[in-house]
Amino acid sequence: MNRKHPKSLDKAAGRVELIHGAGGRATAQLVGEIFAPHFNNEWLAAGDDGAVLPALMPNERLVLATDAHVVSPLFFPGGDIGSLAVHGTINDVAVMGARPLWLAAAFILEEGFPLACLDRIAKSMAEAAREAGISIVTGDTKVVEKGKGDGVFIATTGAGALAEGLSIGGAGARPGDAVLISGTLGDHGMAIMNARAGLEGLEAGMGFASSVVSDTASLHGLIAALLATGIPLHVLRDPTRGGLGATVNEIAHQSGVGMLLDEAAIPVLPAVSAACEFLGLDFLYLANEGKLVIICPPESSDAALAVLHAHPLGKNAARIGEVVADTRCFVEMRTRLGGRRMVDWLSGDQLPRIC
Amino acid sequence: MNRKHPKSLDKAAGRVELIHGAGGRATAQLVGEIFAPHFNNEWLAAGDDGAVLPALMPNERLVLATDAHVVSPLFFPGGDIGSLAVHGTINDVAVMGARPLWLAAAFILEEGFPLACLDRIAKSMAEAAREAGISIVTGDTKVVEKGKGDGVFIATTGAGALAEGLSIGGAGARPGDAVLISGTLGDHGMAIMNARAGLEGLEAGMGFASSVVSDTASLHGLIAALLATGIPLHVLRDPTRGGLGATVNEIAHQSGVGMLLDEAAIPVLPAVSAACEFLGLDFLYLANEGKLVIICPPESSDAALAVLHAHPLGKNAARIGEVVADTRCFVEMRTRLGGRRMVDWLSGDQLPRIC
Repeated sequence: MNRKHPKSLDKAAGRVELIHGAGGRATAQLVGEIFAPHFNNEWLAAGDDGAVLPALMPNERLVLATDAHVVSPLFFPGGDIGSLAVHGTINDVAVMGARPLWLAAAFILEEGFPLACLDRIAKSMAEAAREAGISIVTGDTKVVEKGKGDGVFIATTGAGALAEGLSIGGAGARPGDAVLISGTLGDHGMAIMNARAGLEGLEAGMGFASSVVSDTASLHGLIAALLATGIPLHVLRDPTRGGLGATVNEIAHQSGVGMLLDEAAIPVLPAVSAACEFLGLDFLYLANEGKLVIICPPESSDAALAVLHAHPLGKNAARIGEVVADTRCFVEMRTRLGGRRMVDWLSGDQLPRIC
Repeated sequence: MNRKHPKSLDKAAGRVELIHGAGGRATAQLVGEIFAPHFNNEWLAAGDDGAVLPALMPNERLVLATDAHVVSPLFFPGGDIGSLAVHGTINDVAVMGARPLWLAAAFILEEGFPLACLDRIAKSMAEAAREAGISIVTGDTKVVEKGKGDGVFIATTGAGALAEGLSIGGAGARPGDAVLISGTLGDHGMAIMNARAGLEGLEAGMGFASSVVSDTASLHGLIAALLATGIPLHVLRDPTRGGLGATVNEIAHQSGVGMLLDEAAIPVLPAVSAACEFLGLDFLYLANEGKLVIICPPESSDAALAVLHAHPLGKNAARIGEVVADTRCFVEMRTRLGGRRMVDWLSGDQLPRIC
C-alpha cells in the first residue's frame, strides 16, 4: 500500500492510466492537478458529489440540456473538443430563451491519452466557460481500456434560468413568419473535414477550405441582445449536426408547417462554397457550432436583423426564407437557377463525429 | 435522397449504425422508437434541445451532479448500465440532502451495438426512474465507429431541490461523531467481478460469490426518511468506486479529521467475505451502488439506526466507527484480531470500469 502522496503528475509526458478512473487517490490527483486549477470555483473546491447552487430568481424556471461530445479530431482549426463541449451545451440552453448559468462535465478518457492533451482541453473548456460567464460546477472522470474509447469523450450538461412568460421552442413557427440565419453556413463541418483530410495526408479538393475555421461559439450573448429588444421570437435553434437541413425539418415537424427557403439569400463563405462544389457536398447539411436560426413574425424581421448585424456573431445574418402553411411539413428551396427543390433531412451518410 | 420515412427499426436483429448519430432522420427514428417510448414524458415529447422545467419552491436551491457510466459488462446480476446510470446520479444528488427531480442522459453508442440491448437498457433506465419518481427530461445520442467505444457509455446528470437551511457535505464531520453504514459492503464490486469471471469462463474462487447480486438502488427514499426525523446529519455519501476506503478518506480530508473504524462492526455478506478471502481482496475497497455512509452526532446514532433498520435498504445498517481529532486525517481500523491498521485510499489497482 502506497501511503505517500504520489509525486505531481507529469503533465508533459504522462498519460492517462486506468487507476486515474478508480475513484481513489489517483483520481483525486488527476482532478486536483488538471481540472481543478482550470475550472477553479467554489463548487468544485467543496469536493462533494454534487454542487449546491443558488436559488433561481422568483418564478424563473430551470432549463436543462445535455450533449455528448465525440468530435474527431479532438483539435481542429478554430477550436477543440473542450471549447465545443462548452459552447454546444450553452447554446442548447440559450436557444430555449434561458440564461445559461452552470455546467456539469463528465469525462470518459481512454487509457494512454496524453495528460498534456487533457490539460490543453481542460484549459480550453475553462476559457470558453469564462468568456461565457458561466462555471463548470461539478464533474466526473472515468477511464476505459486502450481501444475501448478514443482519447476523450465529454458529456456536458447545462442549467439555466428562463424568465417568466417566455416560451421559445421548436413548435412556435407560424405561417408567414420570417426565417433568419445569424451567419455563414457550414464553417464547422468544413473545418472538421479539412482537419481530417490533413491528418490523412489528403488534399482532394480540401485546399479550397484550408482557410476555414470552425465557428464554434457561445450564442447566449447574441440571443440576450435579441430578447432585450422585446421582438417576439417564435423559434430559436442552433443548426449543428445535420446542418440547416435537419434543423428546418425538425422545426417544420414540431410546428406542423412548411418552409420555403431562398438559396441566393443563404450566406456561405466562398471557400466553403467552392469546397462543397468540388467535393459534391451540400452546405445545407454541414454542421455549424455558432449559428442561430431565428423564426419571428415578418414585421419583426428587420428589427431582428438590425440587432444581429450589430453583434460580432451576427454580422453576416440574413433573412433566408419564410414559414408557409403545409400539413405535410415540407421544406422547399428556391434555387439560384429559379427552380424549386425539396430540402429533406440529411441526405445519406454525411460526416460522423462532427461534434 | 431517401424521402420516404424508413420502415421501423428492427429492434430484434438491428444494430446501431453511424447514421444514427448524424442528427438527421435516423437519429430522430432511434430516439423516437427506442428512448421516447420508454422515457415518455412531456419534456422529451416537446422535442426541443433542452427541457423547460418548473420553478423550484421558494428558497429551494438547485443541486446538480453528473456521472459518466462505463461499467463492464453492461448487464450483471442485480442490474445493468441503465439502472446503474439512474441510481448513481440520483444518489449523488440525494447525498447532498436534495430531493432528486430530473435527469438528463447522454449516450455514446458504438457502431454495431445491438438495438435489442439498447432497448433493454432504455427500459431498465425508465423503470429505475419511474421507481424513483423522477423523469428523464432531455438527452443526446452520439455514435462512434466500431472499435472506438465499447457498446454504450451513458452520462447522466441529475438536478434536485435542496430545502432552505439544509447543509450536508463532506466537510461536516466533527470529532466524536458516529460513523454509520446502511448495509453490507462490496456487493456491487463482487457481482461485477463474478460476472466478468463468468464471461471469461473462469471459476477461480468466484463460486463463493455466485449468489451475490449488485446492490444498485436509489437511496433518496432512505435519505428522505432520515431527514424527516430531524436528526442532524453531518455527512452523507455513497461509497461507490474505491469503496468505503476511498469514501472515508475523502471525508476525513474534507473535514480535517481522522476516523477510527471497527472491523467487527462492518456488515459484509458471508459470500462476499469468503470470496474476498480466497481472492486476496479487501471488502473496504469494493464498490457499492446502493449504500450510504452517515456521519451524525453520537447521541443521534441510535435514532438514525432505528430509521435505517425500518427501511428495506437499511435493514443491515450498523454503527461502524467514530470520527476522531487528527490533523493528519488518518483513517484507522480496529481489526477483528484486536490490532489497528491504516485504512488508506485505494490500495493499488483494483477493478476498472466498475460503474
